[in-house]
Amino acid sequence: MNNPGYCSEADCSTATDTVEITGVTLDCSGTEDSPPMRLESIAGHDTPEGGMMAANGAPKMMDLPDEPAPGVGTYEDFNTIDWVREKCKDRDRHREITSRKKESICAWIISISDAFSGWLVVLLVGLMSGALAGAIDISAHWMTDLKDGVCLDGFWFNQEHCCWSSNETTFQERDRCPQWKSWAELITGSTSGPFAYIVNYLSYVSWALLFSFLAVSLVRAFAPYACGSGIPEIKTILSGFIIRGYLGKWTLLIKTLTLVLAVSSGLSLGKEGPLVHVACCCGNILCHLFTKYRTNEAKRREVLSAAAAVGVSVAFGAPIGGVLFSLEEVSYYFPLKTLWRSFFAALVAAFTLRSINPFGNSRLVLFYVEFHSPWHLLELVPFILLGIFGGIWGALFTRANIAWCRCRKTTRLGHYPVLEVLVVTVVTAVLAFPNPFTRMSSSELISELFNDCSRLDSSKLCDFSNVTGDPFSGALVDRPASKSLTLAMVELCLALIFKMIMTVVTFGMKVPSGLFIPSMAVGAIAGRLLGVAMEQLAYYQHDWVLFSGWCSPGANCITPGLYAMVGAAACLGGVTRMTVSLVVIMFELTGGLEYIVPLMAAAMTSKWVADALGREGIYEAHIRLNGYPFLEAKGEFSHKTLAMDVMQPRRGYPPLSVLTQSGVTVGDAQALIANTSYSGFPVVISPESQRLVGFVLRRDLIISIENAQKRQEGVGSTSQIFFTECTPPPSPDESAPLKLRGIMDLSPFTVTDLTAMDIVVDIFRKLGLRQCLVTHNGRLLGIITKKDILKHMAQMANQDPDTILFN
Amino acid sequence: MNNPGYCSEADCSTATDTVEITGVTLDCSGTEDSPPMRLESIAGHDTPEGGMMAANGAPKMMDLPDEPAPGVGTYEDFNTIDWVREKCKDRDRHREITSRKKESICAWIISISDAFSGWLVVLLVGLMSGALAGAIDISAHWMTDLKDGVCLDGFWFNQEHCCWSSNETTFQERDRCPQWKSWAELITGSTSGPFAYIVNYLSYVSWALLFSFLAVSLVRAFAPYACGSGIPEIKTILSGFIIRGYLGKWTLLIKTLTLVLAVSSGLSLGKEGPLVHVACCCGNILCHLFTKYRTNEAKRREVLSAAAAVGVSVAFGAPIGGVLFSLEEVSYYFPLKTLWRSFFAALVAAFTLRSINPFGNSRLVLFYVEFHSPWHLLELVPFILLGIFGGIWGALFTRANIAWCRCRKTTRLGHYPVLEVLVVTVVTAVLAFPNPFTRMSSSELISELFNDCSRLDSSKLCDFSNVTGDPFSGALVDRPASKSLTLAMVELCLALIFKMIMTVVTFGMKVPSGLFIPSMAVGAIAGRLLGVAMEQLAYYQHDWVLFSGWCSPGANCITPGLYAMVGAAACLGGVTRMTVSLVVIMFELTGGLEYIVPLMAAAMTSKWVADALGREGIYEAHIRLNGYPFLEAKGEFSHKTLAMDVMQPRRGYPPLSVLTQSGVTVGDAQALIANTSYSGFPVVISPESQRLVGFVLRRDLIISIENAQKRQEGVGSTSQIFFTECTPPPSPDESAPLKLRGIMDLSPFTVTDLTAMDIVVDIFRKLGLRQCLVTHNGRLLGIITKKDILKHMAQMANQDPDTILFN
Repeated sequence: MNNPGYCSEADCSTATDTVEITGVTLDCSGTEDSPPMRLESIAGHDTPEGGMMAANGAPKMMDLPDEPAPGVGTYEDFNTIDWVREKCKDRDRHREITSRKKESICAWIISISDAFSGWLVVLLVGLMSGALAGAIDISAHWMTDLKDGVCLDGFWFNQEHCCWSSNETTFQERDRCPQWKSWAELITGSTSGPFAYIVNYLSYVSWALLFSFLAVSLVRAFAPYACGSGIPEIKTILSGFIIRGYLGKWTLLIKTLTLVLAVSSGLSLGKEGPLVHVACCCGNILCHLFTKYRTNEAKRREVLSAAAAVGVSVAFGAPIGGVLFSLEEVSYYFPLKTLWRSFFAALVAAFTLRSINPFGNSRLVLFYVEFHSPWHLLELVPFILLGIFGGIWGALFTRANIAWCRCRKTTRLGHYPVLEVLVVTVVTAVLAFPNPFTRMSSSELISELFNDCSRLDSSKLCDFSNVTGDPFSGALVDRPASKSLTLAMVELCLALIFKMIMTVVTFGMKVPSGLFIPSMAVGAIAGRLLGVAMEQLAYYQHDWVLFSGWCSPGANCITPGLYAMVGAAACLGGVTRMTVSLVVIMFELTGGLEYIVPLMAAAMTSKWVADALGREGIYEAHIRLNGYPFLEAKGEFSHKTLAMDVMQPRRGYPPLSVLTQSGVTVGDAQALIANTSYSGFPVVISPESQRLVGFVLRRDLIISIENAQKRQEGVGSTSQIFFTECTPPPSPDESAPLKLRGIMDLSPFTVTDLTAMDIVVDIFRKLGLRQCLVTHNGRLLGIITKKDILKHMAQMANQDPDTILFN
Repeated sequence: MNNPGYCSEADCSTATDTVEITGVTLDCSGTEDSPPMRLESIAGHDTPEGGMMAANGAPKMMDLPDEPAPGVGTYEDFNTIDWVREKCKDRDRHREITSRKKESICAWIISISDAFSGWLVVLLVGLMSGALAGAIDISAHWMTDLKDGVCLDGFWFNQEHCCWSSNETTFQERDRCPQWKSWAELITGSTSGPFAYIVNYLSYVSWALLFSFLAVSLVRAFAPYACGSGIPEIKTILSGFIIRGYLGKWTLLIKTLTLVLAVSSGLSLGKEGPLVHVACCCGNILCHLFTKYRTNEAKRREVLSAAAAVGVSVAFGAPIGGVLFSLEEVSYYFPLKTLWRSFFAALVAAFTLRSINPFGNSRLVLFYVEFHSPWHLLELVPFILLGIFGGIWGALFTRANIAWCRCRKTTRLGHYPVLEVLVVTVVTAVLAFPNPFTRMSSSELISELFNDCSRLDSSKLCDFSNVTGDPFSGALVDRPASKSLTLAMVELCLALIFKMIMTVVTFGMKVPSGLFIPSMAVGAIAGRLLGVAMEQLAYYQHDWVLFSGWCSPGANCITPGLYAMVGAAACLGGVTRMTVSLVVIMFELTGGLEYIVPLMAAAMTSKWVADALGREGIYEAHIRLNGYPFLEAKGEFSHKTLAMDVMQPRRGYPPLSVLTQSGVTVGDAQALIANTSYSGFPVVISPESQRLVGFVLRRDLIISIENAQKRQEGVGSTSQIFFTECTPPPSPDESAPLKLRGIMDLSPFTVTDLTAMDIVVDIFRKLGLRQCLVTHNGRLLGIITKKDILKHMAQMANQDPDTILFN
């Protein structure tokens, strides 16, 4: 073909000669029925369009007409990506690489390395996240112990490591040794007495204050995005939103540091949620090493999905649970390829962490449970009770926390984040110290609550009186509670109330803060309390109908540790509304199939109860609080509205701003851009016919016009913009035409005005659209954007639609 | 509104009065610019359209115009469902129930029971499948033993049960007891000698022949769909295809019976794949109890997805693996709700099976492995070798089996299915009897190969000479092989060759036949062989650089059972191309995280190698062989074609057959139906404008016309068909008009002709479309159906496009 892109004089003069294909008039041309396109240039879509455009006396152009200007196809901050376009871009890139594969050995190597780069990047994410998690575990452990005392053999040892090297340790007192000095011992020389207690108390509070002050200052000074758990934002990012810097180098660095500080300060928060954020930062940073992932937002999100799985994998030592967490809770687009890679990455990370061995016990899991006692079918009743408790707590917590966060957003409280953190830290530390169950870290507490009492256990929770039976048997029979156990129960009750209140005010402060561990702690305390109560009931009332037959005196029929486990699952499920991934995580913790049914029963009850009390989990609630444009993949859209009820413009408003495929000047386009704030414009054949040709994004249009004005001679505000396949040859006295077909999306998604909104929502969710055009009998009528849908959904739920902030 | 559905005389006369909404002309009316619709009837889409249509002197109609005739919206056999329409239907139903919820207590109960019916149906599926699986396990075990002998205490005991009651059994010989008589013992009275051997041989072959003859006869006589594994068909059904009777009562009954017979006959097949089919039959049958699932094809497929998970859960005792199998391998549409329900159903089924306790060991899993010996990083090399073997075997097996099946389809072989089964049974039985490893059932073989040698093991595989070390230690150190072990290795080699060949000819015969167990057996044999070889190498060459440092003499550094496990995973992965679900199933078998990395390494290698040698797994290959319209969700469509290259009609062919929204008579429509075989027709405003209004399905059109002719007076072949919102009042001399707007899909999916095919394929996959219309600049140009896409993909892969058989 000669002069591709320009029609010859003869072509453009045959104004009425429309080409008939299959009985339908094809007219891609200037006005509705004027010069037709050549048939070959529709069908021969892959004809090369290159070559300099200097023919026909047209002004010499610097730019090839169909090669988009740099920057076209990128996104601005706080905007939503178009998944379809991104995936298309990637497929084009992939096709190009594979088509060149046979040309040379170098191209073949590029093609192979491209094919394996996906695996390589998730391998690196696994290694890096595993290593970081190990470092975080070790430092948090050490700094937590630093609040109590210091090791004389070397200040860098934590209490456990310090006492390993000691020969004077017995098994019972493996955490006590002469090398480890509490602050009171160092300062006053005595380990007991009210003065030593006060010194320990003060040093505990001071260290906590120091740590939390450092944490909040670092966050405020260097990386404001490092606060919180990060999971709501990651869910939003994975759904296709862009928040630049949220997964950047600085966020990673500061989040890692401040996470250690925040955990060590003893605040009621966990490191598991933020570890997901840390892993996603690793994923995002490592994506920059590979062109495939650096340049494509959709492909990068596949790596981030895998990274989210890695985060949970290292947080709990549960690779399968991590993958299911990513699938169930955070991911939006999760093809099978991502499933495989997530699994691979989660395994690599778990094994990296195990090689680092931060807990010093060669174990992968956070809370290892050794008992395998059977449970009785009747015990399902207390398990379901725990599920109901978890559901109520989850719903209440979400409401209370959201109310508190809204209060922080709207009142003067939000102006003093540092002060807030310091006050909460002081209150936490002052209240926590006197109670042994709150003084220890939440992970230690959960660990202790999960474990069943064995003969060698020195825990207060296992201080039963009147011990009978074989003194060397591992499992103990049910026994009456001693006074010390009763005291421990009272302390646990206080700890429960303390944790419940402090978690509400802590989550959402300007420090990294996860929810998993505090939620699990609340549930584990409640579960243990119920478990001990059941055990006592079974001991004293073993002749009841309920217990007879399976719980004879002298048998070990109730396992309070199992109740704690079930309670933890229930509360975590109530707060986050996870089910399968939660059960799998708990199953991986115990490594046995025995307890799947109790866990499942509690998790499902908890989800149902929590859903009945409030539809949203904590992460969705925070997303809505922050007004992120997140289209939930789970919920069903159940209203009976149509596309025409949602589309813009509404009845009575000015018509949709459109461009025509020819006849628009650069000046017109610039005026349109200046007068509107829409992020894109449909291109139609003529304003009268409103027949749709394509869709142009605002950003692409601005960039292309600016680029043309800079690099192409003779482009002024009177230059005509053509979106057609062929432009008429320009006459010398006119300004140079601007050919912008290259930036137009030739396959915009359309629905009819009578399409039910549930179908439209489904299309947006499944295809990841950013906008969709609405037609009526083949004519363009309006446009629906993701934001319109979110606003409509908010309206339908009687919420304020203006809380949806971004595009 | 008066006379809904009819425009008044005044309305229809204002022919030029087009209504302007947002600057765009709306015209839903007769011809392009004639009577407009009233604005309210666009916007007020939920106005009641009921009431008798006797106004304006129009003929009295029996049928309400917008209430579709019975049968509209159903599907014919061997057709593809429209997921979007089905989901819409379900949402409408759901909305209706919830909107009535507050009207009465009865409605409230209906609404609650409707909400929980999903959970109830999967609970029932779990219970029923678990019970059936237990019955199948018990009967197959008994009948397999029947080939060897009979229990004198009662013929219904299998060998193991028979000897449980015996007091004379020692632990070593727990399978031998005086009550159990082999056939030779019963007939000749002696247990040894050549004559007894021949009697046993003959009885073994005869029983095998009897079982397989019964199996194939039952399948041929009562349920031809009961043959094979069923997984390819279930994949196709889940993707939206309709095969009536495939999941029916008869298939369930006959498949259950013949599965037991086929497994007992000793053929090289397993019961795991067919168990998935059995579970899906249960799911389908139980769906009929609930209106929600009986009437909706899409909802029913959600239950079937859960049932597929149940099948694997009971087959292997691996509930999580089952869910992932359903997600990764068989399901098409797998929302999170289905994930939760699948998990629940899989758990219920696993626990039902455990309560039945078919293996008599209170264990859930099929092959329980007790060892937890560590593995060394260097062992990854043999594991990856096993992966390569698995991949090669998987690809070769698929090719050989497909070639054999094609041969069966095209040659006279296919005419004698009973004879084929009998011949294969005789060959299998005759060859299998002399070799102890092939004489035992495949599950027993795998079990023996997976187990590591302990001191009490009487297996030939553990007959090492020169045993040293503590005689009571459970784990044994590496030892040199004895002569008996060498003989066992030779027998294993023979068994490997035997299994490889017999599996190729067995899979696809007219009996229920699964692939999992034979594939795993091949892999386990290969793995065990390699494991023993490695063990001997390590024993004799422990001073090699490779072994030094981790494998000192007298240590137990190689675990041949682990090699068998890895080999089994590799071969199963090569044949089916599963990865994550495979690893999780194997992980659930062992219950430990230790071996995830070896299993993962082997499974991934196997998948890569097999994919390099042939893209399709065995199930996809069988789907293609049978020509089912299955659009694979995994593969990427990588060609650079456009929608216009795929759509019908092609260039030069007659134009698309369309209906106009008015002006078509019943006679025209009947002629169109008679002359074409398309399954649907687009409705346009006028043939000239080709502006799309909607889409009508052939089946719905036929049913509606027939129904109107039967039930409505005055409908003849000259009656006009109206797809418009309002029809002109009929004059008395004309035939009665037919209003068919109710059967028209007002929101047909459209793409532009320049849409890249990869996007179109994506839309079809994700939304589950059946057809999509192609427009160019707002005008209808053509249509793309799922079949067109499949044909195009076959063409692009240089295959014969005419193998795609159904709609």
